[in-house]
Amino acid sequence: MATQISQSTLKEKSQLLTPLNTQNLLDSVDAFLFDCDGVIWKGDSLIDGVSDTLDFLRSMGKKLVFVTNNSTKSRRQYAKKFHSVGISVSEDEIFSSSFAAAMYLKVNKFPKEKKVSLLEENVSLSSKLHTLNEEAMAAKPQVYVIGEEGILEELELAGFTPLGGPVGAVVVGLDQYINFYKLQYGTLCIRENPGCLFIATNRDAVGNLTDLQEWPGAGCMVGAICGTTQKDPIVVGKPSTFLMDFLLEKFNIPTSKMCMVGDRLDTDILFGQNSGCRTLLVFSGVTKESDLQDPSNQIHPEYMTTTLSDILHLANNKF
Amino acid sequence: MATQISQSTLKEKSQLLTPLNTQNLLDSVDAFLFDCDGVIWKGDSLIDGVSDTLDFLRSMGKKLVFVTNNSTKSRRQYAKKFHSVGISVSEDEIFSSSFAAAMYLKVNKFPKEKKVSLLEENVSLSSKLHTLNEEAMAAKPQVYVIGEEGILEELELAGFTPLGGPVGAVVVGLDQYINFYKLQYGTLCIRENPGCLFIATNRDAVGNLTDLQEWPGAGCMVGAICGTTQKDPIVVGKPSTFLMDFLLEKFNIPTSKMCMVGDRLDTDILFGQNSGCRTLLVFSGVTKESDLQDPSNQIHPEYMTTTLSDILHLANNKF
Repeated sequence: MATQISQSTLKEKSQLLTPLNTQNLLDSVDAFLFDCDGVIWKGDSLIDGVSDTLDFLRSMGKKLVFVTNNSTKSRRQYAKKFHSVGISVSEDEIFSSSFAAAMYLKVNKFPKEKKVSLLEENVSLSSKLHTLNEEAMAAKPQVYVIGEEGILEELELAGFTPLGGPVGAVVVGLDQYINFYKLQYGTLCIRENPGCLFIATNRDAVGNLTDLQEWPGAGCMVGAICGTTQKDPIVVGKPSTFLMDFLLEKFNIPTSKMCMVGDRLDTDILFGQNSGCRTLLVFSGVTKESDLQDPSNQIHPEYMTTTLSDILHLANNKF
Repeated sequence: MATQISQSTLKEKSQLLTPLNTQNLLDSVDAFLFDCDGVIWKGDSLIDGVSDTLDFLRSMGKKLVFVTNNSTKSRRQYAKKFHSVGISVSEDEIFSSSFAAAMYLKVNKFPKEKKVSLLEENVSLSSKLHTLNEEAMAAKPQVYVIGEEGILEELELAGFTPLGGPVGAVVVGLDQYINFYKLQYGTLCIRENPGCLFIATNRDAVGNLTDLQEWPGAGCMVGAICGTTQKDPIVVGKPSTFLMDFLLEKFNIPTSKMCMVGDRLDTDILFGQNSGCRTLLVFSGVTKESDLQDPSNQIHPEYMTTTLSDILHLANNKF
């Protein structure tokens, strides 16, 4: 319930969501951008009232967009997860940091791997070997991934394959199977290959990988590689606004007519602010009211409330 | 050979070791402090000429001290490694970051665990359980280690055991067996236990874990925990001067009469400079001449040479 948030938070710049400003927000915004973990679900458990709230927003003609830093899934896998919890979302509405990593390479014209075929007919072995050798010499740089399936699937969809020449880019995301040898290989690639890109899907410290427990986020793996390479990564997920270009291309709505809803100050809310969106913080994820009030915190959303479905209840004036 | 180093490095503040300044250094210094990995050995291979050089320095009456950031071994295990490569070094001459971690807890009066005994005679079960409960209530905070045997052995020698109440300190060092669950537990302890200490044995980016190959150093594991907790650790190994107090207690020599010999600028040389020692950089480990010359480098040793045995040859004017 929104009313559980103490008035002291109001001394900061953020406004508690009320029936009046909820109505104003709904009137002035054409698209809602949602973080997923901590806003839509925790682990695999849908947060109460989310489904009805999304239906309500759709019924008002609002565009819904899902912008997630969780790189373990591709957009296709995300759409499947939405479907499995009973929410209908299309792949086009999903912008994940795994997609961002693939798009970063594409936009920056990172060479795509040519496939080496061994199946040509009527070619002598020596000319086959010659061709093979030429192909190997011309091998395009490969992408090494410290992360899970989501990144690999998005890279493949964008035409990048983990075959070929020296590693030209290391993409680091959340990896539950992290180990010393993965860290070693990623470190070597970045240190030993001149110009090798170090791309981080995101730097979230922790996340609700399971519904009852926070677990290390991609910030863990990225921090490890920063520690070994003493280099800073190119961050493509939130709070980087890199994904916003793709979002604007898909939806013809100015960012001033968008509202970013998230549970993290340093990723979701900062992304919204950096992009020129309205912002709403929910306390259903990793941020506690005390984090917002902490004197060291410099990031203050425009609005805050306990959970997403407050929008529905406040719009219907049920409090 | 010292003469392989180009003159361009000389434009920086460091002097190439020569017969003349080697003699001056030997005349003005009473103790040599050595880093081990990259100076004495690489992995398990002794670097050429080290044994003769140490013998030479001992024959001149110099005190020899080994100050290492490698936390995987205790002082006892280090003495054993020295012995295995044919160098006689006593435990008293070894100051490791594993020892530093234990001493940090001791100096800061971190409570030692009381042992719970179940073997008292003539005590009823209920009073046994009562005693147990009281002991549990009074349980002293435990230390959680992300690291290897060296840290555990030094903690035990200092009287700390990994039993008892809530974790009050997390010690992070080099851990080749790092995994997601260790990182999760360390993160939880630091985030969820108010006042829990986050102690790093060191933050070395890489090291010569094997003689042919650099591997991630403790900076990898420490970076991972920084990424999840968004906190900075208390560093007890080099470049922190924490170990110097223990060294001064053992050897009654002013730091101006000590020379720190190391292969890393940001740990060894900085430690020497922070402690007021003379400094000598050797290029037999992780630092290349180009690293020293890099405009981003702010750390310049007083002297530099290719390898430790240059001291012996230069003193004997064999170049």
